Amino acid sequence: MGSTNEQWKEISAKAKQKVLDDIPSEWKIPKDKLPGDDVLDVTDVPAKSGILSQLELEITESFATEIVAKIAKGEWTAEDVTRAFCKRAAIAHQLTNCLTVIMFDDAIKRAKELDAEFKKTAKVTGPLHGLPISLKDNFNVPGYPSSVGFCVWALEPMKAESTIVGVLRNLGAVAYVKTNVPTAMMIAESVNNCYGRTTNPLNRATTSGGSSGGESALIALRGSPLGVGTDIGGSLRIPAACTGIFTIRPSYGRFPHFDARSGLAGQEAVGSVHGPMARSIADLRLFTENVANSAPWLKDPKCIELHWRSVDLKPKPKIAVLRDNGMITPTPPVQRALNEVVGKLKARGYEIVDWPNTDHKEAVELLGKFFLADGGKSVRKLLEPVGEPWRPEMVGYEKATEMGVYELWQTQSQRTALTKRYLDRWNDLEIDAILGPTTPYASPKNGEFRHVGYTGVFNILDYSSVSFPTGISVDKEKDKQVADFQAHDELDKQTAEEYDAALSHGLPISLQLTGRRLQEEKIMALTEQVLSDLKA
Amino acid sequence: MGSTNEQWKEISAKAKQKVLDDIPSEWKIPKDKLPGDDVLDVTDVPAKSGILSQLELEITESFATEIVAKIAKGEWTAEDVTRAFCKRAAIAHQLTNCLTVIMFDDAIKRAKELDAEFKKTAKVTGPLHGLPISLKDNFNVPGYPSSVGFCVWALEPMKAESTIVGVLRNLGAVAYVKTNVPTAMMIAESVNNCYGRTTNPLNRATTSGGSSGGESALIALRGSPLGVGTDIGGSLRIPAACTGIFTIRPSYGRFPHFDARSGLAGQEAVGSVHGPMARSIADLRLFTENVANSAPWLKDPKCIELHWRSVDLKPKPKIAVLRDNGMITPTPPVQRALNEVVGKLKARGYEIVDWPNTDHKEAVELLGKFFLADGGKSVRKLLEPVGEPWRPEMVGYEKATEMGVYELWQTQSQRTALTKRYLDRWNDLEIDAILGPTTPYASPKNGEFRHVGYTGVFNILDYSSVSFPTGISVDKEKDKQVADFQAHDELDKQTAEEYDAALSHGLPISLQLTGRRLQEEKIMALTEQVLSDLKA
Repeated sequence: MGSTNEQWKEISAKAKQKVLDDIPSEWKIPKDKLPGDDVLDVTDVPAKSGILSQLELEITESFATEIVAKIAKGEWTAEDVTRAFCKRAAIAHQLTNCLTVIMFDDAIKRAKELDAEFKKTAKVTGPLHGLPISLKDNFNVPGYPSSVGFCVWALEPMKAESTIVGVLRNLGAVAYVKTNVPTAMMIAESVNNCYGRTTNPLNRATTSGGSSGGESALIALRGSPLGVGTDIGGSLRIPAACTGIFTIRPSYGRFPHFDARSGLAGQEAVGSVHGPMARSIADLRLFTENVANSAPWLKDPKCIELHWRSVDLKPKPKIAVLRDNGMITPTPPVQRALNEVVGKLKARGYEIVDWPNTDHKEAVELLGKFFLADGGKSVRKLLEPVGEPWRPEMVGYEKATEMGVYELWQTQSQRTALTKRYLDRWNDLEIDAILGPTTPYASPKNGEFRHVGYTGVFNILDYSSVSFPTGISVDKEKDKQVADFQAHDELDKQTAEEYDAALSHGLPISLQLTGRRLQEEKIMALTEQVLSDLKA
Repeated sequence: MGSTNEQWKEISAKAKQKVLDDIPSEWKIPKDKLPGDDVLDVTDVPAKSGILSQLELEITESFATEIVAKIAKGEWTAEDVTRAFCKRAAIAHQLTNCLTVIMFDDAIKRAKELDAEFKKTAKVTGPLHGLPISLKDNFNVPGYPSSVGFCVWALEPMKAESTIVGVLRNLGAVAYVKTNVPTAMMIAESVNNCYGRTTNPLNRATTSGGSSGGESALIALRGSPLGVGTDIGGSLRIPAACTGIFTIRPSYGRFPHFDARSGLAGQEAVGSVHGPMARSIADLRLFTENVANSAPWLKDPKCIELHWRSVDLKPKPKIAVLRDNGMITPTPPVQRALNEVVGKLKARGYEIVDWPNTDHKEAVELLGKFFLADGGKSVRKLLEPVGEPWRPEMVGYEKATEMGVYELWQTQSQRTALTKRYLDRWNDLEIDAILGPTTPYASPKNGEFRHVGYTGVFNILDYSSVSFPTGISVDKEKDKQVADFQAHDELDKQTAEEYDAALSHGLPISLQLTGRRLQEEKIMALTEQVLSDLKA
């Protein structure tokens, strides 16, 4: 063991090769069409690759809601749809290294069964009939590994199925790929020692975010119409924001999370949740409504018995705006996007108030304490058997000291007191939502995502948060770093220095709209209203 | 400090004297009417004491639902009602040592204000207008201490108010007493070094249970129409069963529990919940419906946004019967009561199946691990400053070793796996509820309550449980210990040996009806239906 054990390298090589081997040769991008590393934006490659037929292009450019409608009308078959996404996912992997598990054969077999059933009954088996859904690596599908970025697990097929996988199958969905994550899913970029790094297809010099960054890269390349990720500190919202797609981080217990693999198994002070990622709110809704109404509380003991509810929104909602969390100043394009959005909402009659960043720093500190409470033991025990080294991003875990349970209890008391103060502030202002940055960046360079505070605060609070693309993108002329920038601290200074207007040019900018705990219905409806009002 | 610090004795003497001093002299039971220690059943003493007027007797014998109706019609004033319960609570204390805090003056002042408001508006301020509600010691009322059985806290007035106290006040209720608990609320009888022991008014040689045993003694003596207790391992259901009253242990997050004082602050692996205790299900409902519908999620960040729902019951429910948890065999009267109830339900057409005790032992072991996870530090830190000794019942805490967070996480994973297996079993049998003993005893002798497994399993599962009196009581002729009793183990043997048919004669026997997590509405409605069917 120790430094002489290099077993992890062999495993890594095999695991990477396995993904490549599972891509049919006719779906490999021809050498002359494979962009070099210097090509940053690869979003046009799938269409130009020659691998996808016109129908397959049409299918993969469609929204999930459109796809299920076409299949239900008999216009497209589940097999055609599934094959199209299998192909495009294979292409996406070759461009961004976004996949860890390929299940094409099983998926096409399943799609054929669905088609046969449809032919026989003229009815869909469920509201997601024939829809391919991509899964973050930690959702267990029997027969396939769930490495969560650890070499030790990369070649071990799982036996049990995660609850959400069965729920989606019962709704008619087709599982076809699993996607890359960082080690233990505890880094804000998707990089690990086993499968390597996933990059952002909009600009491969930047990160697709993490920990659900295989999903975000895949969806942004339209290699998936709808994906499932997880979030414990921002792992849905960060990758969604980095790639300009939509997600909702639900409150704990809203959707089934049983038996999804964790890098910090048994950690409960901050609940890990799963949520959908897609290219529209309507597509998120296709997931949230159907999953909530499938009675998941009968399958996951931690799920709350709560059907999807209808909501009445005020025509002129009251929105509190968080401009700066007091830790990391949003980079110029994020500031501008927030200003523009707030300006438009004001013009539409929304009541806009300032939201103080009170308690945000303490919340982020608490988040770190909870993650490191076991002294990094959970991670260490997964690295050591195969000699896998600590990744540099995990230095906090490597150096952490284990907390005793007494201290954990005190820390939990501190968190409860904080959540009460926050709730009281919310009620005092009678706001409908908080609008703010999802991250300080559009998307930073690979290796430079350094602050999860804008998302993490809402994990500590367990609030429901949507991250949505504003339709605004970075403009290197408008979004220059100000000359007299006043940093909060060294990290803030570094963040400002690392911001690169030229590199970020054209990247989409997302914002985060947050409701209280278990207000998934309200915050999604409100996001729809905001988006509609922004367009009007 | 250490053994020479006897500060706790002085505090205890002062705290006890303070309660007695707060009872007006005219409410002290005359010496000739005060029963000697040899008088075990003291339930007739209040009526014979000469302290209560005819109206006051009528008021205090009424149900909470009747009381609020009479006040709302103007037949009784809030002041008359409050004074009647203050008096009767004072009497109850002299008989069972059930109070820790007396707030008579504040209560009567508040009742007068309610009456003045009613006179002015001819309307009640809320559905609990004028109803005195007793509070377990750990609910904070500003200006009064919350000792939770610790000397160190017994003379320290609290500053903040527990959420539920404010919710009840807003509904119109009147807080007038707080009631005794065991040290840290972690013993199944209500005994501590500060206030001493509360006894069971039905038979003072037996326990009123714990940890909400001040409440149960008070309510059984009709010194309170409705009380609020807490439950982390059976602390509502055990005292309710010992004294023949009703309670519901709700699932975590159903009712607000914010800022109720805890003996194990910050412990979250098993959620402490509060619930009502009363003499009828209708009285419980007066509390549960109104509290749930007061939007407590706006005040307690851990409360779930869930209004009180209506339920449709099957006319012939499917009930699974747990006869023996494999640890402690129920004593003969409990076995008989369960048999009789099951027989009647069968005769009424209920579908009755056996419920296996699978996982119960592991659940109870997990409960113990979670309680002791801090190595008793939380308790020790409250004993040491005033030299308070460990109570013998707390030896587990005294000897415990602190767990590291890594081990806690593994234990939490184990619990999650258990709750999943249990849920799957529930669904496989498609049952509506589990019926079984609340405790192995009717009520045991003081000092002999040794097993909380029948209640504790449902704390691990976070299921909703009602404990209800069956209407059957111990019969020393029918309920003799069997000659060839086969014990599961030494503790089971001891339990059988300690069972005393003659002593228990006449004590009420309760059972426990359990629904899944967050099925409070269903399990209360089902208990009502069962009770009605048992009478028919």
